[in-house]
Amino acid sequence: MADSIITLTTDFGTGSPFVAAMKGVVLSINPAARLVDLSHDIPPYDLRHAAFFLAGSLRYFPENTLHVVVVDPEVGSDRSVLFVSVAGQRLLVPDNGCWALLAAEARAQPVRVIKVSEPRFFRPTVSATFHGRDIFAPVAAHLSLGVSPADLGPAVTHWRQLAWPAPARQGPQVQGEVIFVDHFGNLITNVPASMLPGFPGGPSRVVLPDGTSPRKARTYADGLKRELVALISSNGLLEVAEVQGNAARRLGAGVGLPVRVESAEEWVPR
Amino acid sequence: MADSIITLTTDFGTGSPFVAAMKGVVLSINPAARLVDLSHDIPPYDLRHAAFFLAGSLRYFPENTLHVVVVDPEVGSDRSVLFVSVAGQRLLVPDNGCWALLAAEARAQPVRVIKVSEPRFFRPTVSATFHGRDIFAPVAAHLSLGVSPADLGPAVTHWRQLAWPAPARQGPQVQGEVIFVDHFGNLITNVPASMLPGFPGGPSRVVLPDGTSPRKARTYADGLKRELVALISSNGLLEVAEVQGNAARRLGAGVGLPVRVESAEEWVPR
Amino acid sequence: MADSIITLTTDFGTGSPFVAAMKGVVLSINPAARLVDLSHDIPPYDLRHAAFFLAGSLRYFPENTLHVVVVDPEVGSDRSVLFVSVAGQRLLVPDNGCWALLAAEARAQPVRVIKVSEPRFFRPTVSATFHGRDIFAPVAAHLSLGVSPADLGPAVTHWRQLAWPAPARQGPQVQGEVIFVDHFGNLITNVPASMLPGFPGGPSRVVLPDGTSPRKARTYADGLKRELVALISSNGLLEVAEVQGNAARRLGAGVGLPVRVESAEEWVPR
Repeated sequence: MADSIITLTTDFGTGSPFVAAMKGVVLSINPAARLVDLSHDIPPYDLRHAAFFLAGSLRYFPENTLHVVVVDPEVGSDRSVLFVSVAGQRLLVPDNGCWALLAAEARAQPVRVIKVSEPRFFRPTVSATFHGRDIFAPVAAHLSLGVSPADLGPAVTHWRQLAWPAPARQGPQVQGEVIFVDHFGNLITNVPASMLPGFPGGPSRVVLPDGTSPRKARTYADGLKRELVALISSNGLLEVAEVQGNAARRLGAGVGLPVRVESAEEWVPR
Repeated sequence: MADSIITLTTDFGTGSPFVAAMKGVVLSINPAARLVDLSHDIPPYDLRHAAFFLAGSLRYFPENTLHVVVVDPEVGSDRSVLFVSVAGQRLLVPDNGCWALLAAEARAQPVRVIKVSEPRFFRPTVSATFHGRDIFAPVAAHLSLGVSPADLGPAVTHWRQLAWPAPARQGPQVQGEVIFVDHFGNLITNVPASMLPGFPGGPSRVVLPDGTSPRKARTYADGLKRELVALISSNGLLEVAEVQGNAARRLGAGVGLPVRVESAEEWVPR
Repeated sequence: MADSIITLTTDFGTGSPFVAAMKGVVLSINPAARLVDLSHDIPPYDLRHAAFFLAGSLRYFPENTLHVVVVDPEVGSDRSVLFVSVAGQRLLVPDNGCWALLAAEARAQPVRVIKVSEPRFFRPTVSATFHGRDIFAPVAAHLSLGVSPADLGPAVTHWRQLAWPAPARQGPQVQGEVIFVDHFGNLITNVPASMLPGFPGGPSRVVLPDGTSPRKARTYADGLKRELVALISSNGLLEVAEVQGNAARRLGAGVGLPVRVESAEEWVPR
């Protein structure tokens, strides 16, 4: 059954006829395909958001599930369409690095990448602006019917990377930044729990640019309503949240906000 | 077939990787599960909105459909996760009263509540902040595979209630308030049709705080375009609407707006 | 399999219990129905938007797929509910012309229209304000179980049209207007490629009301980032876009914006 599941992730918006057209194309080729919407509200053209989204969700799917991802600011250029086998999942993606974070987290596993180039699996006419309908959807449908990825085109060994801000250890400090804001306004940083041993225990503190220091917590419920807390999010990254509120709105902050973690020797008053 | 249907209702937002992760977890355990999105746009933490949403929709599903509801401001605290059998439906919910209105409307029927506490049906590691992925999704998948609710944990007889504003009869008046605003800006009150015999007939009138009195109607089409009307909504409650417009925007009003129904003797000019 | 696919398109909003109720009603009658959400974010009451949406998506579905469309500003009036067989697809729609554009594009094909009037396929009680739940959903479910359209009611030969702005050729000019704005802020006009032979080649130019003239392009990638371009959209209509930006926001423009295409003799400087 998992073979016929095809998930869809786009930045087309929930009101878009483009998503509907893609679903129609898939079902026309494989009426038994089981479409699962992941999200159509990736912010337009936002590759880092897409990368974070995919890294935080695809790994939970059954092995070899097929995921179609169309966040594609360069549609119509000569960027490639890739079939990627990574982290136990199968992806159809534009070659723009949107799967970089997923791959990074599955480092130990081999990656297989194919440049999708066999037009016999495309729609007869390929438009210049809507490859979701004309390439991604029909190729996904054919894969779900059993077409071998090897038939899609040649294996490749080079692909685009996605620049990504890395957290830095500066002496006793860890300097990171917000890389994702969720629907609750929670600010998720690029600082992994592995850089914060013992957190939330220990004498370290989290510091925002305005000097405020959220209470370190294990979960939202450890704070008072509307209190700022810092905790390890469900994907293992340092997160700043307002309990039952919206930290992004309260702080007027978003992606890029610097977040510093200071160790005890720096700030404990003497 | 209905046995394998699992509906999802959350306040995670349509752009959320958390919804996608839940879908992955369900399908990894039961690849044949048929996921049906109800809504992921319950306003964050809004239990009354969730309660109204569930009361207005779950009853239409096939008997024994399984509904997963994750509107969970207290995740990570010691609040319980409940399996609830009510109104012919099966629910997995945080113990926060979000199913109170559904239960109230199915008063005659017995309710069965189980405290979900068997970790063998959870994901191996349960995070402090994302029980949707780590508890609700895997337990739902196991139920859809035939696990008996009795195996999830002990039956309980106490659970959280949800405070809910009740309409009041004050002499010849009925005093209610808006409890839900839909996408069209229609203002749905807590006044049931049963408190308004003969409505829209009879000499009563509906009065808003600013003194205006919407035209009593049977349906939107009874009013002129942009006219304010008062009618019985499709769920049996008094509703104030602007015909082909948006009453909430026009009145600058929302949940909590007092709405009064006066009987004839009060207002008929002598 | 395609026989059991039922697509849903409404203006109820993604947060709406009304969509959920419709899904429940369908599944209660046909638990094997395969529901596919097209969109619930058609702007409220916006029939032209719905018409454009349907014309741009339904044609891609397997032949005879059943599409339920509830954008219904006149619910409760005496407007009819129609079963329409057009463009190889089957639709259940309010009689408000929302399928006009789809029909126009499938001109050569016969259209079959039935006035849905057999209450035995409705819910036992039909509310005055929610025919989506009480008529559309149950009728769709019965159709998916094999009920013949002829059993729904009498064939009719008249139905409502939808006024639609037509592009005009004025001497050497083509005068059109924006009829749809997508999620990326791309402005799609009513000028078909067939009125612009050779586009983007040739000496013609596209002119906006403020006098600016977007660069003619084949695809977004032909322009620089943030440049305004004019191209033929994936549905064959002239479109004005900002490369990796949002033309609607940049121009403060939307549906109704006049767009003119001038031929060479008008503007080439001498």
